[in-house]
This record gives sequence, structure tokens and C-alpha cells, in this order.
Amino acid sequence: METLWEQRYALRTQNMKGSTIRELLKLTQSPDVISFAGGMPAPEIFPINEFSEASTRVFKEHGQQALQYGTTDGYLPLREMIARHTNKYGINVTADNIMITNGSQQALDLIGKIFINPGDRILVENPTYLGALQAWSTYNAQFVTVPSDQDGIQVEHLEKALRAGPKFMYVLPNFQNPTGVTIPLERRKLLVELADKYGVPIIEDDPYGQLRFEGEHIPAVEVLDDQMRNDNGCCYTGNVIYLSTFSKILAPGIRIAWVVATPEIIQKLVMAKQGADLHSPTFNQILTYEVARHGFITEHVKTIIRVYRERRDIMLEELEKNMPPNTKWTHPQGGLFLWVTLPEEINTTDLLIRAVEKKVAFVPGSSFHPLGGGENTMRLNFSNAKPDMIRLGVQRLAEAIRENLK
Amino acid sequence: METLWEQRYALRTQNMKGSTIRELLKLTQSPDVISFAGGMPAPEIFPINEFSEASTRVFKEHGQQALQYGTTDGYLPLREMIARHTNKYGINVTADNIMITNGSQQALDLIGKIFINPGDRILVENPTYLGALQAWSTYNAQFVTVPSDQDGIQVEHLEKALRAGPKFMYVLPNFQNPTGVTIPLERRKLLVELADKYGVPIIEDDPYGQLRFEGEHIPAVEVLDDQMRNDNGCCYTGNVIYLSTFSKILAPGIRIAWVVATPEIIQKLVMAKQGADLHSPTFNQILTYEVARHGFITEHVKTIIRVYRERRDIMLEELEKNMPPNTKWTHPQGGLFLWVTLPEEINTTDLLIRAVEKKVAFVPGSSFHPLGGGENTMRLNFSNAKPDMIRLGVQRLAEAIRENLK
Repeated sequence: METLWEQRYALRTQNMKGSTIRELLKLTQSPDVISFAGGMPAPEIFPINEFSEASTRVFKEHGQQALQYGTTDGYLPLREMIARHTNKYGINVTADNIMITNGSQQALDLIGKIFINPGDRILVENPTYLGALQAWSTYNAQFVTVPSDQDGIQVEHLEKALRAGPKFMYVLPNFQNPTGVTIPLERRKLLVELADKYGVPIIEDDPYGQLRFEGEHIPAVEVLDDQMRNDNGCCYTGNVIYLSTFSKILAPGIRIAWVVATPEIIQKLVMAKQGADLHSPTFNQILTYEVARHGFITEHVKTIIRVYRERRDIMLEELEKNMPPNTKWTHPQGGLFLWVTLPEEINTTDLLIRAVEKKVAFVPGSSFHPLGGGENTMRLNFSNAKPDMIRLGVQRLAEAIRENLK
Repeated sequence: METLWEQRYALRTQNMKGSTIRELLKLTQSPDVISFAGGMPAPEIFPINEFSEASTRVFKEHGQQALQYGTTDGYLPLREMIARHTNKYGINVTADNIMITNGSQQALDLIGKIFINPGDRILVENPTYLGALQAWSTYNAQFVTVPSDQDGIQVEHLEKALRAGPKFMYVLPNFQNPTGVTIPLERRKLLVELADKYGVPIIEDDPYGQLRFEGEHIPAVEVLDDQMRNDNGCCYTGNVIYLSTFSKILAPGIRIAWVVATPEIIQKLVMAKQGADLHSPTFNQILTYEVARHGFITEHVKTIIRVYRERRDIMLEELEKNMPPNTKWTHPQGGLFLWVTLPEEINTTDLLIRAVEKKVAFVPGSSFHPLGGGENTMRLNFSNAKPDMIRLGVQRLAEAIRENLK
């Protein structure tokens, strides 16, 4: 039955695709499917006790405040804590540079809302985070892509894309979603210099940066941009908007993330957020602060790294044992994902149907390519399934691939 | 210092006004200001113990689920509970008709996102809820206004506005924000019939409906619309999208609200919400369900009504005692606000400066008029301040007005 509402969709909704990831989450909720599809943390290591104790404390000591309306920019002690954390990485900011969002997804949406006019070009790595494509398609953005390899975005192809006059560039330098690859220092420096040459500002999305299993921390694009602009690196100059989140270092179900930008941009984002949802839940912000304030995250991240590193190793080992010839995959130094490139004759969207029959799931790589391509690629998540399930899942996947190759 | 970002604001941000309410919240956070400005519930009666106990239970029994990513439409048991609640009011829906949002503000934003093309006309009561104006201005909506009186929207002026071809109509039938007035049954019926005649669908925003201090419950516009369309009133026909929230019956700091619409519209809203923030916090949804599931809200609402009715009565009494001649105010039968119309020579935006000097605050009425007007009106909140403070606040306000009249 069609209501008056059905006739009324805005044209913009034609640009709003359903999320393959989200639809797959439903498909693979059956407990006998081993899912490498979602981007879900390992629930066994969620710090439930710490949250529960902090929660009791918050209700006891800040009950009225936690249940009341709050300010749009966010709970000040939390923003101050994030500013201190940011300063440790060499970016000199205060709470005025920080706004709290409902996951980084909301930051992407609000950035789209304040910056994107219909038809604006946005420069992205290819492949890139599906959620950013979804958020910005809503505002009728056009995407300009730069291919990536084992070291992330290929800066030798960057200049051509920058000449297309993008409004901004979007990069995930650490353990990228979907590929798991990391941009090395030299490439980051080149990226910052080229962006400066063409006057293109940068969104740096860094949800996984703290989850490094091996190798040295590489300075954020934001830090390198600042160093380029002032010799002593003292100041945050604001050409890089930096996003991060508590979703991967504490828990995603709390939906607390943050943006770092100039106070002027923060004010614009605050206005957009007022109209979008007034503010993020006061309780969740105070709770996050209470869980994190005494350095708990530093300890907890060690546990996450230990568990995820083991799972990555097992997945790599099983891929090595089971994948057919002419199959490649990335070796992520951290994060939650790796990326498999299958022989060209395999279409991973078709493969997914067969894989789900065999009770294993992944995300077909084409979803992450805004302009098409990547039909023979797939994203595998290694953080969520337990070691035995990873083994079994990769074996099932290999079986589905072998049958598909016949 | 101007960054590359500052040069990049979309034109649409010109339509994004800062919220007077939000800015005032900052101005009046000083503890010696008696604020009638915000729309804040009485924090003394927040059910902190119930929340704290439920929270411990949620972490114990559903810890992993509560901290994990969830589905975009929302926690199924909560949606089912809301569907049962909705059915009690005569609207036959299931969980498929319900989506959870971060406060009703997010529902307004997502509705704007999926329905409004630049330049679309939206029919609103005049004055109306500022947050709706903010949310839809972002999408470059144009507003068509219909004046309201002691009985809400004046249906005799409605037909002319409907002829302007609005995309939809937005009404708050119960204890409206900002005026506190309620649309009587006969007007609601006329409103539904006229909307049907012109084929204009309706957004019914009902955050306060359960907070009725006196008089009989009046059927929702949604119910009347359904009754008009099918004799036995059995089915939800979907021409009215209905919004409500736990903010006023439990606590706003949790940010859990809901939309009722057809499954087709819900699917569109879900796609928009995916891009906006993936989903509302899983923990908050399970917590809300745990607090509410055994009928707690029915009992708690009685407490809220008792406290707010007393505060309304005190405010009315003090207005009667202190206001200058030729001042009128509404007598709300429920909710959180009343509306004062001062002698025409008084501009309430100017008055606010003097009032804040005297340590009392309100929202100037012009904020709620999308096309201008209402310069001699103001919104007063009576839910937040305690009785003695209401007395003192109205006295301070009257003093500011008398000085202004000189």
C-alpha cells in the first residue's frame, strides 16, 4: 500500500545505498555462520566489569547530570582527556578543538553536512571505508579515487586526482578499512606536501591507530602537516581534521567518538550536530570518561593487541595453507581487517552466495570501490571470530573458492 | 587564522542557525540564574536507582551484546515494547513500524534527509519547535506557517497554507513546544480531513503526550487519520509519521526516542541512519528496555505529573500576581512550557539582556517564528526550577518587564 509519503522521497535518496555490511550482518546473524564480514571487536574481551563498576559510580556520583540534557560539544572532562591524549602525539590542542560524536560515522555525516554541496568532488583511496561513501553520497558528492597498494594510497597517482579540484581528501593511514594496509612515513610526507601544493585539506580517519601489533608507530598525517607548516611543530594548524573513536579500544555499543579540528570548524560541527541530535548521550560520555580516566585504556589495548595479533596470525597461516594459486592478501600490522585478491575470474559477490551456503561470510571488495572494480577482492575481519572458528572459516572459504573455480 | 577548511563551507551552512536555546543554556549555566529557558526535566525526580540497578543487570546479563555493534533499526525487544504501547492507543503496528533514534531530534533530521529537496515547503504551526526549524533549514526547506491560538493551529487558516503545496505538515498536538497549548478533538479531525483533501501527509511530534495534568486524553492525529481511512480503525495506514521519546518520561541524557511509520518509510529512515551514525547505542537501548519493561513508566509518570502540575500552578499563580496589565499567558494542561504574550511595545530579545542581569532567563518567542514575528512573546519552562525558584524567578522577570516598560 502506497502512502502519501512514498511519493515524496527526495531525489537525494537515490544516492543513498543500503549498506552491504549492514544487510550482511542480518544474513550472517545465524549462529552457525562464521562471519568475517562485520567489523566487530571480540566481545569476549570487552571490559564489562570496568563498565559496570564505572556505571554504578556514575549513577551514584553524577546521576542527575548523567540523565539530563548536556551541551552539544560534549562532556568537558572527556574532551579535556582527549585533548591531553592528542597532545601526547604532538598535536597541541585543547578541549575547544574537540567535539564528541556518536561513533566516527556521525563525524563523517556532519562533515558532509557542513562542507559538501551537490556535485562536489571528494578524493578517496580506492578501496575505502564504505561508511564514508554512504555518508557523503547522501549529500550528492562525486568521488575521485586514487589506487592503493601494499603501502596504501599511491602518491604517484595523487597529483592527477588533486588536479580535479576535490573539496577535501579522505585517508585512513593506519591499518586501513578495508585493506588493512598502513601508509609509510615517506608516503605520508609526500601526501601532505602534495595536498598543500594543491590547497586540498585532509580528513584523517584513525579508528585503529592504537591497535598496532608490530613495528613502530608512524606520526599521524595531522602531525606531519603541522610539522611542515611550523618548524617547531608547536601548533595545530587545522588543515587536517582528525577522527578517532572509543569503539575499537573500549566498545562500539557505547557510540562515543571524537573529532579534532579548529575551534571555528568545531563550532560549525556543533551547529550541525544541534540539528542532528542535540548532543551525544550524557551518560555514555561520563561513563567513558570514568572508565578511561585512570589510564585503563593503555592496559586494555595490550589485551586487545594480544588477542587480535593471534587471530591475524592464524588467519594468515590458514590463508597460506588453503588459498588457491594466484591469490594474494595483505599482511596488516594492526587493526581488524585484511584484504584478499583472488584470481581475476572470480567474482566475490557471486562467491558470497556459495560461501554463505558453506556457513562462512565476508564482504565483497566491490562495495568499497566507489567507481566500480575490485570484483575479485574481499575484506576479511579477523578480530571477531575465535581462533578455531578462523581456521574452520578460512577452510570453508577456500572450499567455496575451489568450487567456484571449477 | 583561516585554514583551507574555512573557505570550504557549503552554501547550505548559511541556512544553519545556531540554536538560541543552546546558546542560552551556556549563558544561564551560572548557578545563580533561575532558568525558565531550557526544556529540561526536573532532575530531582530522575529514576536514578532504577537506572543504576537496571544498568548492573544489563552488564551482568547482556554485557557482550550491550557493548557490541547493533542493528540500525534498534533493539528488537525495545521496538516490540514500543509497538505494544502504540497499539494501546489504537494504532495497530508491529516492531517493523518502529525505528529507534537519538532523541526525536534525530528523527526530524533523518526525515529532512530523506524527504526534503532544496526549496521544498514545509507547513508548520506558528510558533513551532525550534529544533524542527533548525533540522530542516539545513536541507534548505522553506516554511509555510499557520497561526495558532489557545487551541493550537487555527484550522480556518490551514486551507490556504495547504494550497501552497507543502511536502508535509508538522504538528505538536499535545502541550506544544513552545506554547503549551493542546489541539482539541474537533480541530484535530478537521486538520486530518483538510490534510487528506489536499494530499498532504503529517508529522506528528508527541514528546509530552503522557504528561497530562488534567482533562481527558485526546486521540492522536495518527489515530484520527486511521479512523477516517478505515471504519473499524484496525490498521495503521501510514499517512501520519508519529514521533515520541523516553526523554520526558524517563530521562533525556539517555537519548532514546522512536519513530512510527510504514515499514517502507522505516527502511528509508534506516538507510539514512546507517550513514548518519550506524545505530543508537546498544547499551542505552537495552537499558531503557530493562527500566521500562515491567510497567515502571506508568508509575513514574504519575510522579512527574504531580511535580510538574504543582510547578505549573505556582508559575500561573505568580504570573497572575506579578505581570503587568495587557499581558496574557497560556494555561497548559500538561507538558513543560507556557507562553507569555507581553504588551506590544516590549521586545523580549531586548528584555532578555535585562532579565539575565536580574538572574532570570527565558527564550524570546521570535526564535520559534520561522518567518519573523512574536517579538513580544516568550517561552517559559516550568518543569526544571523548584517551586521557590519559580516564585522568585517570575518576580525577577516581572521586575525586568516593569523596568523595560518605563
